Amino acid sequence: MSKFIKRKAREAGLAPGTLTDHNPSNEAAEINVIHYDGENLEERKVINADECSVYKGSLGVTWINVDGVKQVDVIEKIGKCFNLHPLLLEDIACGGHRPKIDDYDDHLFIVINMLSYDDTRKDIISEQVSFVLGENYVLSFQEDIEGDLFTPSRNRLKGNKGKIRKAGADYLMYTLADTIIDNYFIILEKMGERIEEMEVRLTTNPTPALLHSIYNLKREIITLRKSVWPLREVLSRMERDETPLIKDGTKIYIRDVYDHTIQVIDAIESYRDVLGGMLDIYLSSVSNKMNQVMKVLTVISTIFIPLTFIAGVYGMNFRKNFPELDWEYGYPFVWGVMIAVAGAMVLYFRKKKWF
Amino acid sequence: MSKFIKRKAREAGLAPGTLTDHNPSNEAAEINVIHYDGENLEERKVINADECSVYKGSLGVTWINVDGVKQVDVIEKIGKCFNLHPLLLEDIACGGHRPKIDDYDDHLFIVINMLSYDDTRKDIISEQVSFVLGENYVLSFQEDIEGDLFTPSRNRLKGNKGKIRKAGADYLMYTLADTIIDNYFIILEKMGERIEEMEVRLTTNPTPALLHSIYNLKREIITLRKSVWPLREVLSRMERDETPLIKDGTKIYIRDVYDHTIQVIDAIESYRDVLGGMLDIYLSSVSNKMNQVMKVLTVISTIFIPLTFIAGVYGMNFRKNFPELDWEYGYPFVWGVMIAVAGAMVLYFRKKKWF
Amino acid sequence: MSKFIKRKAREAGLAPGTLTDHNPSNEAAEINVIHYDGENLEERKVINADECSVYKGSLGVTWINVDGVKQVDVIEKIGKCFNLHPLLLEDIACGGHRPKIDDYDDHLFIVINMLSYDDTRKDIISEQVSFVLGENYVLSFQEDIEGDLFTPSRNRLKGNKGKIRKAGADYLMYTLADTIIDNYFIILEKMGERIEEMEVRLTTNPTPALLHSIYNLKREIITLRKSVWPLREVLSRMERDETPLIKDGTKIYIRDVYDHTIQVIDAIESYRDVLGGMLDIYLSSVSNKMNQVMKVLTVISTIFIPLTFIAGVYGMNFRKNFPELDWEYGYPFVWGVMIAVAGAMVLYFRKKKWF
Amino acid sequence: MSKFIKRKAREAGLAPGTLTDHNPSNEAAEINVIHYDGENLEERKVINADECSVYKGSLGVTWINVDGVKQVDVIEKIGKCFNLHPLLLEDIACGGHRPKIDDYDDHLFIVINMLSYDDTRKDIISEQVSFVLGENYVLSFQEDIEGDLFTPSRNRLKGNKGKIRKAGADYLMYTLADTIIDNYFIILEKMGERIEEMEVRLTTNPTPALLHSIYNLKREIITLRKSVWPLREVLSRMERDETPLIKDGTKIYIRDVYDHTIQVIDAIESYRDVLGGMLDIYLSSVSNKMNQVMKVLTVISTIFIPLTFIAGVYGMNFRKNFPELDWEYGYPFVWGVMIAVAGAMVLYFRKKKWF
Amino acid sequence: MSKFIKRKAREAGLAPGTLTDHNPSNEAAEINVIHYDGENLEERKVINADECSVYKGSLGVTWINVDGVKQVDVIEKIGKCFNLHPLLLEDIACGGHRPKIDDYDDHLFIVINMLSYDDTRKDIISEQVSFVLGENYVLSFQEDIEGDLFTPSRNRLKGNKGKIRKAGADYLMYTLADTIIDNYFIILEKMGERIEEMEVRLTTNPTPALLHSIYNLKREIITLRKSVWPLREVLSRMERDETPLIKDGTKIYIRDVYDHTIQVIDAIESYRDVLGGMLDIYLSSVSNKMNQVMKVLTVISTIFIPLTFIAGVYGMNFRKNFPELDWEYGYPFVWGVMIAVAGAMVLYFRKKKWF
Repeated sequence: MSKFIKRKAREAGLAPGTLTDHNPSNEAAEINVIHYDGENLEERKVINADECSVYKGSLGVTWINVDGVKQVDVIEKIGKCFNLHPLLLEDIACGGHRPKIDDYDDHLFIVINMLSYDDTRKDIISEQVSFVLGENYVLSFQEDIEGDLFTPSRNRLKGNKGKIRKAGADYLMYTLADTIIDNYFIILEKMGERIEEMEVRLTTNPTPALLHSIYNLKREIITLRKSVWPLREVLSRMERDETPLIKDGTKIYIRDVYDHTIQVIDAIESYRDVLGGMLDIYLSSVSNKMNQVMKVLTVISTIFIPLTFIAGVYGMNFRKNFPELDWEYGYPFVWGVMIAVAGAMVLYFRKKKWF
Repeated sequence: MSKFIKRKAREAGLAPGTLTDHNPSNEAAEINVIHYDGENLEERKVINADECSVYKGSLGVTWINVDGVKQVDVIEKIGKCFNLHPLLLEDIACGGHRPKIDDYDDHLFIVINMLSYDDTRKDIISEQVSFVLGENYVLSFQEDIEGDLFTPSRNRLKGNKGKIRKAGADYLMYTLADTIIDNYFIILEKMGERIEEMEVRLTTNPTPALLHSIYNLKREIITLRKSVWPLREVLSRMERDETPLIKDGTKIYIRDVYDHTIQVIDAIESYRDVLGGMLDIYLSSVSNKMNQVMKVLTVISTIFIPLTFIAGVYGMNFRKNFPELDWEYGYPFVWGVMIAVAGAMVLYFRKKKWF
Repeated sequence: MSKFIKRKAREAGLAPGTLTDHNPSNEAAEINVIHYDGENLEERKVINADECSVYKGSLGVTWINVDGVKQVDVIEKIGKCFNLHPLLLEDIACGGHRPKIDDYDDHLFIVINMLSYDDTRKDIISEQVSFVLGENYVLSFQEDIEGDLFTPSRNRLKGNKGKIRKAGADYLMYTLADTIIDNYFIILEKMGERIEEMEVRLTTNPTPALLHSIYNLKREIITLRKSVWPLREVLSRMERDETPLIKDGTKIYIRDVYDHTIQVIDAIESYRDVLGGMLDIYLSSVSNKMNQVMKVLTVISTIFIPLTFIAGVYGMNFRKNFPELDWEYGYPFVWGVMIAVAGAMVLYFRKKKWF
Repeated sequence: MSKFIKRKAREAGLAPGTLTDHNPSNEAAEINVIHYDGENLEERKVINADECSVYKGSLGVTWINVDGVKQVDVIEKIGKCFNLHPLLLEDIACGGHRPKIDDYDDHLFIVINMLSYDDTRKDIISEQVSFVLGENYVLSFQEDIEGDLFTPSRNRLKGNKGKIRKAGADYLMYTLADTIIDNYFIILEKMGERIEEMEVRLTTNPTPALLHSIYNLKREIITLRKSVWPLREVLSRMERDETPLIKDGTKIYIRDVYDHTIQVIDAIESYRDVLGGMLDIYLSSVSNKMNQVMKVLTVISTIFIPLTFIAGVYGMNFRKNFPELDWEYGYPFVWGVMIAVAGAMVLYFRKKKWF
Repeated sequence: MSKFIKRKAREAGLAPGTLTDHNPSNEAAEINVIHYDGENLEERKVINADECSVYKGSLGVTWINVDGVKQVDVIEKIGKCFNLHPLLLEDIACGGHRPKIDDYDDHLFIVINMLSYDDTRKDIISEQVSFVLGENYVLSFQEDIEGDLFTPSRNRLKGNKGKIRKAGADYLMYTLADTIIDNYFIILEKMGERIEEMEVRLTTNPTPALLHSIYNLKREIITLRKSVWPLREVLSRMERDETPLIKDGTKIYIRDVYDHTIQVIDAIESYRDVLGGMLDIYLSSVSNKMNQVMKVLTVISTIFIPLTFIAGVYGMNFRKNFPELDWEYGYPFVWGVMIAVAGAMVLYFRKKKWF
């Protein structure tokens, strides 16, 4: 499978919504459940996904976080508990989606991409995080098992800071989305640092390696852009749409996340402009340097070729009527001529600023 | 007829909707009928297109698949059975349409392009597949006789897997469209592999042949793009439009196909960006290599031209006052001067990083 | 008047709708009238435009075709007969309009551009064809007298083929528009052939003349594009607008013409892409060829310059301590050295793939 | 003040709508009043702007034209007479606005740019013309005193040609706007002529001066474009908006002006395309010419360098075993060799089409 | 933190709307309160932000201006007085926002960027100014303490000039926004001057430093653009939206500011076009100059290389059948040949305009 395509065409002959088990390494999914209301909070690890069903109609808010989506039966069991459509489950399990929001009347399905910078592959890694927002529950699915972006949110819930415990599931949803988008700023800062470093190299030592770096960064910015642009639409719909699942009091917070997304987009566009300018300057300075070198080399040849001609003249073996050869000071005189010619050319070239 | 235009201007003086017989090779159309409901399924090959008329008002769902659209009378007979507009039949028979959807009240006419990669012509082949979706029937017309993309769907129907047998004609229509779009991912993967292979050649051996490969791929991507962009609109209208022919329960599946189309478009845009970057790097590296070569060659000339001049000086035949010629160690001395000059130049050029 | 502007600013001080007589060559307009219903058809040439008035309120459909719009009084008389607005008449007489549709309640005014390829001027010629569609009449005005695109339609009417005689004026209008747009495909095919021919020249013999050809074709495509893009809007409005002049049964035919227009636009965009790619390849291959030549020439110089230096050394006239000159095999030895130097350089350059 | 900015920031601390007197040269405004109805017409020059107030509620149509907007008190007095908003007056006096239309309920404020070509500055001059259209009056303000574009309209009014005297103030407004836009075609024709002249120079003598001309014209086209694009919106709003000030009968004329504006825009876009193509051809032909020159020069050097080497060989002073020097026909033989070498190279280079 | 990102990701685990104290230098905020109605005006400096609460429900208009937003408790206290949402306060304190308008029913929150040119950093500095517009109050927050753009507005209020004292809070809001946008014209004028200066350098002395200047200016224009584009939307919404906070009488003023913003955008787009053209001319003239130099140098070499060859011929040591060496006037004759060859080449090159 090419590295450019994340989604694999569904095996021919399979019905849509059929979850195929892409789990060669047999990774187990980790299910973490937090159930809370203004006063109490309960956290537990769930082994059997069926247990989730108890939370469906309960009072208070339930947040079920699943790390790892490759264990198909877990996804299916949770889907059954919360009455999720098979296509929704396929979207969770398959990955590679751009950010989107689907309205299934009694729950919203929201996909956001989490981005991280992989230092070894020197590239931005995009991981799909899927959310299902119901009336009193939030389900979140993270593609990879390692790393959990949501630890701070969990701590905030436990610490009962701010209004998070008093507010409903929609506010929790907002908190999680906000965490992911805040994370984009870290990526942006790292990119900013690399651009600044490249700018230094651009003025001191523009090498072809720099050119490759610029193009790599450009490609990463395109990846980033592809994750952020549709997110804008997703958030805008969350704010505008008439869904009872997102209360009016929460919409102001979503507008805030929307504003942050706009800031991210602004920064991305700035980076593109800056990189574009750097490319132009790079190409222009490489060509300029080459021109300088060629000019100097050509000037040297141009000065010596006429001198060589003069020397050649007096190396001719004519035996008659070749008076200069017999002059008393023929040799020094020729040196004088040659120095004069060379000097005149140097002066002329200098005046023309040719080297 | 130019290879760029698929549609031929209708012969002057012909009424619209007149089907002209473009069938020099006298290819027969193959008609395959599947009639099914939740319990029974009947499959047969139809020789005389008139026989199709029995299926029009029958219970259950009928799927008539026609391979080969050049046999005009077959198209016309089917058109008469299902009461299709002459312009619709012309669209089926003519080919070369971009994806579109036309609403004829009691049936929808849908055109989708099937793409395949032709290894001999080294190009993407686009084949028009036309669908007519009625209340209890689907007609599908494939331009070419060989190859049938729909075998898996047929098997699924026969195997009675998933909900396909219980659902109506609209769900069958979805299944067929989904099959075609899933097929795009295979094209995308092949393209992705070629891009990766080109990236390797770009760093190891950038030849003009590579340039042509890049442009060829770029052109194929444009072909692909032209098939996929209007498809987005077609699917979006299938999902949104208020037609009784597509039930609400099926719309969620069409939204899923729509999402896949968006993924295809995303991948296409990525490929374009990547190819654009490769072109720039190619041109820059070719120019860079050329510059290196010219610099080295010029440096060699530049070093030897002054030396040749020195040798020329002592080849002059002045007979008087030419003391160096009579020096005891004139010759070794001149060698020393020449080596010093050459060495100084080499050092200077090295310091300047000119070669 | 510049060739780029077709319309001339109206003479200052003239009221709008004043028809000025731009008819230096005194070309007479030819008026051809066809009056028909399902059973009868009458065709005649009209000398005095006033005679047209009898057709205004008559039963059946009247088609008045005027070849040549420069004879102002003819236009004015017809305008009076059918109660046309002075501005409409000015638009007919003036020419140079882009396709447009104006709704004058009891008639529609439609402008379409007819295109033909002028072999002598090597350019696309655009001719404005103006239509007035009333309830039971169609007026068509062609700018030039020679050539008549509508002969096939006339024959179809006379032959009573298809539904043309039974249908109303709107269907006749559709037939005429369809004829013009079908004609675009002929232009497109010719362009396609030229592009293919250019592609061959591009790989075999890329000359500056080819570059000019590419730019010429690019400009023609821009002309074509300017005629076709607004046409899309015109046809779309004919299909969508709520005008009693176009019956619902005819709208399906107009949608068909609309689809053909989209196909033309698609082909135009493809051509632009292909030409863009050809330009890039042209420039790149010219630069590549030049680089090859310069490299070979420079390599030759670079090999002989050091050899010349060696020969120069042994042309020096030092009289003492110049042992090589007295060696028994000095001369062959120097030849050996020179051959070795040249050989080493050739091998090195070959290894580096410099020529 | 930079030449790029026409508007100057308002002096800090001034209330909006404060008219500051930018009238260093103390230019007087000329006020010309024409009052007419179907039967009578009265024209007079007004010295004191207060006199205008008599026309406000009078029967018939009043057209007040003011040449020169720098005399602030004149603008203010007229503003008081017709009850105009201070901001509207500021817009008139300040200049530098893009075309716009503001609806002040009982009058419309319309800004259009008049363009003229200044031969001395070799640039397009844009002058703001402001209109106030009331129920029975039109006020027009021209920035500069010299030159009056409206003389023909004035003559038409006096001559009572066409419907101008019978129609209302809105028709007068239309006439004036039409005059300005007709004037654009004159600018376009001049530009067209310059482009044609440049095309000739492009093929005969492409100099850097031509490059500057192309860029200058490009810049002028951008100026023109900036005046015309917003005008399209202005006219479109005049046609569509529900204002009692523009009667339905007049709207058809405004649509006509709108069509002309579209033609101007079309021509501008064509010019841009043509100039873009000319730039590309210029750069390509300059580079091509340079390549030709360098190739020929390099070929000459490449032919003579090996010959010089041969001559150098027989200039060596080896005293033993140098048989050629003693051959009877050594000298002619060497000439033969040199001619053969040179000939072979010339043939080879010719075959390769290198010069 | 990179210089490209102004906003810092919120510390993980913090609730939204938590104001973190980014105030290392412990800068105090200065609070200036002006309370006025048509007759009286009171101005005072407030030390304790709590005092602001008295103004909330009072008659007349209150303008509270805060210089410096880093002292978190001040912002919070004012927020409590006027019942502002925590997210709004976070937006004020955080900075780095693009212009926006948020409607909180009983007050509007408006962000505008103030721009100034920093001569030391040679860059445009963007400072966020936040406004809260309530029914009878305006709060304005400036990021930096030094410099106050609003002094003129303050003087106007005190001086009771124009309608500012009689009008409400919305008119004050307009005045302040107008002041900021008027300030953009000063930036534009400075840029215009730099562009003109660059144009002079472009024709007299195009150096790589000029290239960097062009790119720097381009980047500044992008910064400016990013501040102004969204402002257009903000003002357009202020004019259109149905909010009781902005009275109809004030909307006409806001439309005026909107027009100015459009003028700024027009100027920015002009600058971009001009800079684009300058870049092209720069690159073209650099390449042209280089070509000239190389051509002249190559011409010199090309003339002398054949001459050197001729001299080399007569430096050969053939002893027999070398007649020229014994000619009486061999030497002058060879000089003649050499001068003839050189002259012919010079004439040929001149005719070809190669130097």
